[in-house]
Amino acid sequence: MFSERIVKSLASGSMIRAMFEQGNALKKLYGPENVYDFALGNPDLEPSAEIIEDMKALVSQPDIHKYMANAGHADVRQKIADFMKNKTDVAFEARHIIMCTGAAAGLTITMNSILNPGDEVIVIAPFFGEYRSYVTQYGGVIVPVRAIPGTFQLDIDAIGNAITAKTKAIIINSPNNPSGAVYPEEDLLKLNSVLLGAETKYGQPIYVVSDEPYVKVSYDNVQIPEVASIFDNAIIVNSFSKSLSLPGERIGYVAVNPLIKDSDILVDALIYSNRTLGFVNAPSLFQKLVADHLDDVVGLDSYKERRDVFYKILTDIGFECTLPKGAFYLFVKSPIEDDGAFCDMALKHNIVIVSGKGFGYPGYFRIAYCVSMSQITGSKEAFAALYKEATGK
Amino acid sequence: MFSERIVKSLASGSMIRAMFEQGNALKKLYGPENVYDFALGNPDLEPSAEIIEDMKALVSQPDIHKYMANAGHADVRQKIADFMKNKTDVAFEARHIIMCTGAAAGLTITMNSILNPGDEVIVIAPFFGEYRSYVTQYGGVIVPVRAIPGTFQLDIDAIGNAITAKTKAIIINSPNNPSGAVYPEEDLLKLNSVLLGAETKYGQPIYVVSDEPYVKVSYDNVQIPEVASIFDNAIIVNSFSKSLSLPGERIGYVAVNPLIKDSDILVDALIYSNRTLGFVNAPSLFQKLVADHLDDVVGLDSYKERRDVFYKILTDIGFECTLPKGAFYLFVKSPIEDDGAFCDMALKHNIVIVSGKGFGYPGYFRIAYCVSMSQITGSKEAFAALYKEATGK
Repeated sequence: MFSERIVKSLASGSMIRAMFEQGNALKKLYGPENVYDFALGNPDLEPSAEIIEDMKALVSQPDIHKYMANAGHADVRQKIADFMKNKTDVAFEARHIIMCTGAAAGLTITMNSILNPGDEVIVIAPFFGEYRSYVTQYGGVIVPVRAIPGTFQLDIDAIGNAITAKTKAIIINSPNNPSGAVYPEEDLLKLNSVLLGAETKYGQPIYVVSDEPYVKVSYDNVQIPEVASIFDNAIIVNSFSKSLSLPGERIGYVAVNPLIKDSDILVDALIYSNRTLGFVNAPSLFQKLVADHLDDVVGLDSYKERRDVFYKILTDIGFECTLPKGAFYLFVKSPIEDDGAFCDMALKHNIVIVSGKGFGYPGYFRIAYCVSMSQITGSKEAFAALYKEATGK
Repeated sequence: MFSERIVKSLASGSMIRAMFEQGNALKKLYGPENVYDFALGNPDLEPSAEIIEDMKALVSQPDIHKYMANAGHADVRQKIADFMKNKTDVAFEARHIIMCTGAAAGLTITMNSILNPGDEVIVIAPFFGEYRSYVTQYGGVIVPVRAIPGTFQLDIDAIGNAITAKTKAIIINSPNNPSGAVYPEEDLLKLNSVLLGAETKYGQPIYVVSDEPYVKVSYDNVQIPEVASIFDNAIIVNSFSKSLSLPGERIGYVAVNPLIKDSDILVDALIYSNRTLGFVNAPSLFQKLVADHLDDVVGLDSYKERRDVFYKILTDIGFECTLPKGAFYLFVKSPIEDDGAFCDMALKHNIVIVSGKGFGYPGYFRIAYCVSMSQITGSKEAFAALYKEATGK
């Protein structure tokens, strides 16, 4: 009666969102203070006072709530192009920037613009589960390649082996959700060599779609290489959800490397997709807002402190985990083989976490630590009891 | 190299948006005061002072910029359900409301949720050209049925004849863009009889997708019937772009008639589509804002005055036009057969209008009169000269 494709998919919904709903149900039952909800990457911090003040000033600006060109406000696109040019030394102009309704929309319009039915898109597991939808709903095929266990770094050889004549793109996401891994420049340069070789072999470009919502959320002075400086075929997808604590407002941009062959056609396709897929334009007020805060980041010290405290709590108990260099997740080894069963067991201790299966990487679970410090320290005993139940130790 | 489907479509872009860009080019050349740009339904009025004040207060509310459930804020959905229930006497509950990123998104998630490949969707010409994308990109087939010439009312017999075993839905849009026609209750009741007959004949529901961005923009005390009260299979798509003058901010909702069989599955499909098609959730701040202004409308008297003045200017010159009862467009008969050629001719007079072809109704052109009164009165001589050039009179 309805779309058979969609109705069939309903059962395999987002594990993150399913756990988010589970968490809410537990909170109703036991009170929010008694549930340790680490399901969703929903920053607990408010936007900075400066951002709030800017919003207040912007809402009464003339014309600010009106339609603009589907690609976004011209002045905003220019500011982002200048910012990107300055960061990357790549000759970005305003016409290479398309404002979009968050990174999810940016990835959606990108996949719609580049994929033909049967085209393959390599993703690095563990990966954000929604990539499946973004790729497959436009006829693409998702090809997961496992990251190196433990470090979650790129397995360049495995990526090389996964490339076929049908490979249209690879999605990279550094800092990575859920592992927090940051890919060093050395590895990205190696990846570039592999891709260049494959492009020559198959006579067609392979686009590097860089999903960068966490690019400003990193710790310990780790260097985050500029993807657009390394890959001529880079399509950068950015979002201000995490850096400015605005996830509910849906604002981001796509930046097309001008070195892409026929980049003007790609830009037109992205703008066309933005319009016809129902986005029309990115929310106008937030376009203007972010244009003056392109390099801001909220609460980095606070996230780092929480990462360190949570990491110590978990590893002291006996959990195995690599210290993440970015984002605000811990990707922890499940003490029993079945990570799904482990997450169900956690619910009984009022702990809400997401199974690694949802990220294409079984045997692990994800903790989002963008929550209050008291939630983190408060969960210590519950995690200890959970560990004991799971391991018998 | 890119998506062949999209690259092919680039040439057949939106005529409205193409004229919008043409208008901007003319303004650069001759100065904005010398171009009469009636291309885009982009309300010139600012949101009300009360709305602006509410926005200012909302931006600093705790948690307001965060993620919420993909369907939207629970309290906002409840308020809209109460509003809809009160208006329609249909038992809407919060779970029947899905907040969406404007009506374009609402139509997109609806089509994605209901259509199987080959399903037919009837639209009433003249119609908003973007319906083509919303229907065809999910495998649907668009079936235009011409409205009655002159009045642009529903041709019930023609609709009946267009229904087949593959008809999944009909999109209605009253007040209509571009004609301004408002469908009376009597005709909607007749349409309901025809649909009920076809549902019995083919043994399956036909959804009435009611695209209602202009439902609060009407004149002369015309009655706008409640679509959800008439059609059990109604899916209402609303937007605040026009009523609150917020088109750039992308905020609206979908209301599913609880009488639809398996309405809970449809709701789940809509929420799933909202998430997986990259919308994630409707912009959070604007969800909260509209919840307290569900029945507001900005500038009705002002639009009516402009309608009357513009109508008189055009008909005095000799143009043929039906006085519209709603929305803010005039749909005028082209004085020469080829409406595309007429719109090109208009550009030479610095008049920017959109060809009826773009709305599936050749022989006419659309004027958006949501512009300043001085633009309207200022265009009088240009329209007279254009008419003279076109007709020789």
